[in-house]
Parts: sequence; C-alpha cells; structure tokens
Amino acid sequence: MSINIYDRDDFFEEYNKLERSQKGLDGALEWPLLRDMVGDVKDARILDLGCGMGWFCEWAVKEGSKSVRGVDISNNMLERARARVPQGTFDRADLETFTLKDDDQYDLVYSSVALHYLPDITRLVGQVYAGLVPGGRFVFSVEHPVFTSPRHAGWRWDPDHPSEKIWPVNAYSDESKRVTNWLAEGFEKYHRTMETYLTTLLSAGFRLVALKEWMVTEETVALNPGWRYERDRPLFLLISVEKPA
Amino acid sequence: MSINIYDRDDFFEEYNKLERSQKGLDGALEWPLLRDMVGDVKDARILDLGCGMGWFCEWAVKEGSKSVRGVDISNNMLERARARVPQGTFDRADLETFTLKDDDQYDLVYSSVALHYLPDITRLVGQVYAGLVPGGRFVFSVEHPVFTSPRHAGWRWDPDHPSEKIWPVNAYSDESKRVTNWLAEGFEKYHRTMETYLTTLLSAGFRLVALKEWMVTEETVALNPGWRYERDRPLFLLISVEKPA
Repeated sequence: MSINIYDRDDFFEEYNKLERSQKGLDGALEWPLLRDMVGDVKDARILDLGCGMGWFCEWAVKEGSKSVRGVDISNNMLERARARVPQGTFDRADLETFTLKDDDQYDLVYSSVALHYLPDITRLVGQVYAGLVPGGRFVFSVEHPVFTSPRHAGWRWDPDHPSEKIWPVNAYSDESKRVTNWLAEGFEKYHRTMETYLTTLLSAGFRLVALKEWMVTEETVALNPGWRYERDRPLFLLISVEKPA
Repeated sequence: MSINIYDRDDFFEEYNKLERSQKGLDGALEWPLLRDMVGDVKDARILDLGCGMGWFCEWAVKEGSKSVRGVDISNNMLERARARVPQGTFDRADLETFTLKDDDQYDLVYSSVALHYLPDITRLVGQVYAGLVPGGRFVFSVEHPVFTSPRHAGWRWDPDHPSEKIWPVNAYSDESKRVTNWLAEGFEKYHRTMETYLTTLLSAGFRLVALKEWMVTEETVALNPGWRYERDRPLFLLISVEKPA
C-alpha cells in the first residue's frame, strides 16, 4: 500500500501552508525545469499520477490539452482537484495497485513528487508503458536518491570543517522506507537508487530522453542567501522517457 | 590538460601495490559488473581510453577480439601495457585533445575509471560517437558523483548519531576539481553531476543501455566486515550507451 499522509489532518494543515499549495505550480521551484521537459501539451491526452490538488491538470487544460485525468490516493487532494478542474476526471486509487483499462491511451503521463511514496514502481511503470501511445512520454519528478538515502536526513555541520554543512549520505544501497519529520512527525517515503529508477524504466521498454537533478539556481540564492545549501546536494530527480514509436 | 598523476613516482609506487595493479581485472571489485555490461567482444575492434597497464586489452585479446588499441597519458602505464599485450596498439595521448582519424571504426569503446581526470568530456564523447559503428557501444566507469562531490571527501562519524558513519555530500552543483589524498598528497580529479554525464551522452546522440551504481556486495561484506560502509554510498558509476543502428 502506498503512503497516504495527505489525509492526516496535522500534516495536511501544514501542507496547505506551503507555497506550492497556495500558489500552485508557480510556488514549486522545480516547475520551470519540469515544464520544459513536459513540452507542448496541446491536444494531448494526459494522465497525472498523484495529481494532488489538480494544479498540473488545470495548467494542461489552459494549454489546450485534449483531456486530463488525475489519480490520487488522498480524498483531501481529490476534493480540491475536482473543484479546480471541472473539465477533468479524477479517480481515487492507490498507485501501487492502479490499473489502466485496455482502451486507455495517453500521449503524456505525468507525475510530480509522488512515486517515492510507493515501495515499488515496477508494476506501475509497466502500466504507464502500456497506456502510452508510441512516441508518448512519461515525465516525472521524485525526491532525489541523494536526498532520500540518509538513515537520518538533515544537514549537519561538518565535524572536520566547522564552517561547512554536509548532507549525511548513508544506507544508499538499502532501498526501504525512510521516516523524517517534514511538516509533521512520521513523514514516510521510500528510498530508491538512481540505478533502480533507470533500470526499471529501461527494462519496461522506455528510452531515456532527459534526466535532471534539480537544485536551486544561483539567481535564487542571490535573492535568498539562506538557500545556498540547496546547491550543495540535489533535491529532486526529474526524468523524461519515451515509448519508442 | 587532463590530470596525469600516474607518472609521479610517489603515487605510482603506491598505485603499484593495489590489488588492481597486482592482479589486474580480478583485483578490481567492479570488474564483474563492468564485464557483464561489456558483453561479448569476439571479433570486436576495441578502443580503450585510459588503458592503464593494459589489463582490459589483454582480456579482450584472450576473448577473441579482432583488434585492441589503448590510449593513455602515462608513460609508466603505456610501458607496461605494451609489454603485456604485444598484439595491441598503444598510443600516448591526452584524452582532452585526443582525436580519432576519419577511418577509425570501433565496435566497442571502453574506459575504466579515467574520465573523471578530464575537466570536460563533451569533445571526447563526440569523438567516441563518431568513431563507433552504428550499433557500437561505449561502456565506461568513473568515480560516482556522490563520491566525487564533497569539498572534503572521507567518512565522518555522524555528530547526531555517534555510532553511524556518513558520507559528507556538498558542493554537488560545483563541477570542478577536487583534491584528495588517495595514495599520495594532492590526488586530483573532476566532479561532474549525474545529469551532466547523461546529458552529454544523450546530446551526442547516444541511447542509454544501462546505468549501474557500484557498491560492494553483501557477500563481500560478509567476508570483509570492515567494508560494510561501502554499501552506504555508491563508489563507481558504470554506464553503457549505444550508437543507434
């Protein structure tokens, strides 16, 4: 079963205060890079896995997509998505067991920071591959393996160089649940290696189009000096793959 | 100019004591995984970039390759390679400026832990692409970006969890020279991100075949308990790409 912390009141209350919850895509710093990877969605049939509040579906409708469908495990999220995007179809489903119908055909499958809630993505990636038209793309973001690997995540002062911070990578080979205290106690996610993400995609038949390791830009740091450590380790992994035509 | 520490006597003396210098490929723990990625080399025309002492070329000759050519910047290394593999062709060249002739055609270009000595690999990757036959492969290993990123590499005890070790990732976005003291003072190499390696290869026209993050196996740790931290962060990055047929 995938993790569903978004229906926990204490977490959701805090989540609602985030810029990405208040402002949508414009509040998500990685969105410009992800949007470039998504490209033109005019006339596209789109499936959004872990659609959350429906921000991406709303954007896709405005950009002229042919149809948008969102799937999420959280009733809190789906309620907002349905209100935001009346043109869309929104279904409650656990991505770990989510199954496409034989006649579902998509030009783009999208997923933003959702797949790291799943203990395994092999089955889902197979579903996505089957549901895409030849030449169709799967574009997604997840928390970066460097970010998810630590047994105890969080910056440390370097004991050997006290003016510098370090990100405490360990347990990289241990692909299992990690528990942190992001927004609420007991925030859970799954660590997977870069090798596993790519091998799973290639084994399903996908071709790698692009891989990006998102960090804040120099320009952002110039405006927000406190964020300079966000150039010290990658936070998000963004991947675009294509089903060969 | 690429880094050439292998012609420095203090370093080379220490390097010669390593298992991989004494035993060749069988002394390199990542070799079994890399060999699987290389696959069958029978009748193949092979180019080895940073051929070192010629261990791989020797193996390829034994496996029935059609021709082997090695390139290295180090005279120390080339001298040993020529003695080891009289059937091979060995040239001294700096990989940063190394250029293939128009009629050079290879089925496999191989490189083992050499490309992180180059400040930039874009030009070389273009040369490799041009020199491969359609369907030919480029298979290489480098030090993993997680391993190369730290400003000050080396395990730390976790200040917050004193019984655990952490690998101090920082400066990940800073693609530049790193200086460590591996085998000798002032061992230099270049850090590059995973994104840069993959983007450079894809931009040149290559298709990703496989990507592996080498760590010691559980079996190795069972035999050598002191190596257990080598499952805590990836040491080598192994990549196989193909020139589309």
